[in-house]
Amino acid sequence: LRLILVGYGNVGKSFHNLLDQKREMLRRVHGLTPKVVAVVDKGGAAIDPRGLRYDAVSRVKHRSGTVSAMPGAGRSGAKASDIIGDVDSEAMVELTPSNLRDGEPGMTHIIEAMRSGKHVITANKGPLALALPALDELALHNGVRLLFSGTVGGGTPFISLIRRSMRGNEVVSLRGILNGTTNFVLSSMERNRSTLEDALSDAKRLGYAEADSSLDVNGLDAAAKLAILTNVTFGRKITVSDVAVEGIGSIDQGAILRASERKTPIRLVAEASPEVMGVAPREVSADDPLCVYGPLNAMCLAMEGGWQVSVVGKGAGGLETAQAVLRDLVELRESLSSPGQAPGSPVESLYG
Amino acid sequence: LRLILVGYGNVGKSFHNLLDQKREMLRRVHGLTPKVVAVVDKGGAAIDPRGLRYDAVSRVKHRSGTVSAMPGAGRSGAKASDIIGDVDSEAMVELTPSNLRDGEPGMTHIIEAMRSGKHVITANKGPLALALPALDELALHNGVRLLFSGTVGGGTPFISLIRRSMRGNEVVSLRGILNGTTNFVLSSMERNRSTLEDALSDAKRLGYAEADSSLDVNGLDAAAKLAILTNVTFGRKITVSDVAVEGIGSIDQGAILRASERKTPIRLVAEASPEVMGVAPREVSADDPLCVYGPLNAMCLAMEGGWQVSVVGKGAGGLETAQAVLRDLVELRESLSSPGQAPGSPVESLYG
Repeated sequence: LRLILVGYGNVGKSFHNLLDQKREMLRRVHGLTPKVVAVVDKGGAAIDPRGLRYDAVSRVKHRSGTVSAMPGAGRSGAKASDIIGDVDSEAMVELTPSNLRDGEPGMTHIIEAMRSGKHVITANKGPLALALPALDELALHNGVRLLFSGTVGGGTPFISLIRRSMRGNEVVSLRGILNGTTNFVLSSMERNRSTLEDALSDAKRLGYAEADSSLDVNGLDAAAKLAILTNVTFGRKITVSDVAVEGIGSIDQGAILRASERKTPIRLVAEASPEVMGVAPREVSADDPLCVYGPLNAMCLAMEGGWQVSVVGKGAGGLETAQAVLRDLVELRESLSSPGQAPGSPVESLYG
Repeated sequence: LRLILVGYGNVGKSFHNLLDQKREMLRRVHGLTPKVVAVVDKGGAAIDPRGLRYDAVSRVKHRSGTVSAMPGAGRSGAKASDIIGDVDSEAMVELTPSNLRDGEPGMTHIIEAMRSGKHVITANKGPLALALPALDELALHNGVRLLFSGTVGGGTPFISLIRRSMRGNEVVSLRGILNGTTNFVLSSMERNRSTLEDALSDAKRLGYAEADSSLDVNGLDAAAKLAILTNVTFGRKITVSDVAVEGIGSIDQGAILRASERKTPIRLVAEASPEVMGVAPREVSADDPLCVYGPLNAMCLAMEGGWQVSVVGKGAGGLETAQAVLRDLVELRESLSSPGQAPGSPVESLYG
């Protein structure tokens, strides 16, 4: 299976490294022999139809700041969309940073890949939160698959749990802790009596938060993930702008401590059902599986008949997200009847 | 898809009822039109190639104690293995009570079904805990699928999470709370200072435990589930007799209270890795996702690279287990390329 890898930051490098490390297992267990035929970053691309190895590409990236400096294979200044359209491959893996304003550059990459008949695997929330219904339709139209496990829950398989492991059961509503940074902050404010600012600095120092944490604090990152989960779970064609959002920016430390004393700690809860959709700070019972501490994510599904299933794990992180992308690659491989098969296999819509 | 339903207790009735309630959704979403062509219980069978409805069968069962009293369709005294071998159908659903001594009568039912080319879906732990490696081989040999989501975790998709949602990632070790009764008992001893005997009576009164709870208390029920999970997760061909077991029968209430004060409550923990396999009371951190209260089950997977995924839900219960059986039916349907297809489609071994 030939791959074009677009975006070579933390997740991109981790994924490429995993592919090389797991080569033998992937072949033996899943009949999968992936070959990275192009890597694209802001500076250009490296292209080699015989396959690019992690060691070589990451060394060049580290030394020169761009993969396009690679001797022989480098194309300095090459445009991502040209590479995506022109290089022969079965799939594109899109791992550029998320952008919740217009989804770019991921949006263009994904559209270009699908138009040129390539399956898409992405961990980029932006394009999906803004346009999942349209992208799903484009995938169907082009007979390609669009897989995006890494967009929600990091390594924790929220999306696959819903789409694969619960098939045949009906979800009535879902609640989630979808942003690890704010959960870490609220945990610290509760347990260590930190201020919001101090907790946020700690989160950055420990690598749980990016330098710019505004989308964490204002709830938009959680809203983007909730938008994706709502499409997947309920087949509702909605985008992030449909989600009612309240962040934790103006949260009161006294309120946090009082709630904790009542054994109903405050968490930034994302909720969706066929009727409701929103993100806001809420009190949750200390016994609720949603009441996790530190930089964890959690999701509780309320099922028809009154039972409940919950899943907990670390939120976004380079390795965890790369592992989610690898799972999507295995799923893609299994949905094609033979390894090198051309796109055009039956593709199912999210919306039934 | 024609089904023979063997065992018509709590789970069997719930499953039959679900099939009828969800008829429209199953057809529309999954292209599945299941037809129960035979129901078997201890007294005999009811057979109708046009399909048996839940209302009619459950009414007869309630009135007469056996489905074989059904006018027109009843076969009083018919042997299950004859029905399984002789009635035309694509799959058998085996839901008789678990038996950890010799796996009967489920063992014979499952073997007979596979020999006559029928796919098997079961929620019966006994045969699998005693002979999963051999049954997997028999399934491969006969080109049929053997699905058993309902054997572990009740409605919580422990097995599917490992087999489907985490494909491509490597599990280093797993720890589980696999028996809801003992977890309820340990929770009550800790939180309400109950004695073991009182907590067990409460569990029976509330419907969390069977009249005979000896297999819960001595740890064998958890060991049987751990044996199944170990086969699935690590491809180790082992049975319940390979599991080191220590139950909660001789547990000391003082120890429980002291552990709780140290914020490391005692739980009956099942653990497996490629090297280890055992069930025993252990202290777990209050922050550990495994530290659940009441009749819940939980499973934590430690993944290669040092990350962790956990899932929590209610353990066995008629409705929850029936929902797991329904998920297996949807998976079976999807693995056949067309609804009425004869057995013989590619079947994968658990052991790779």
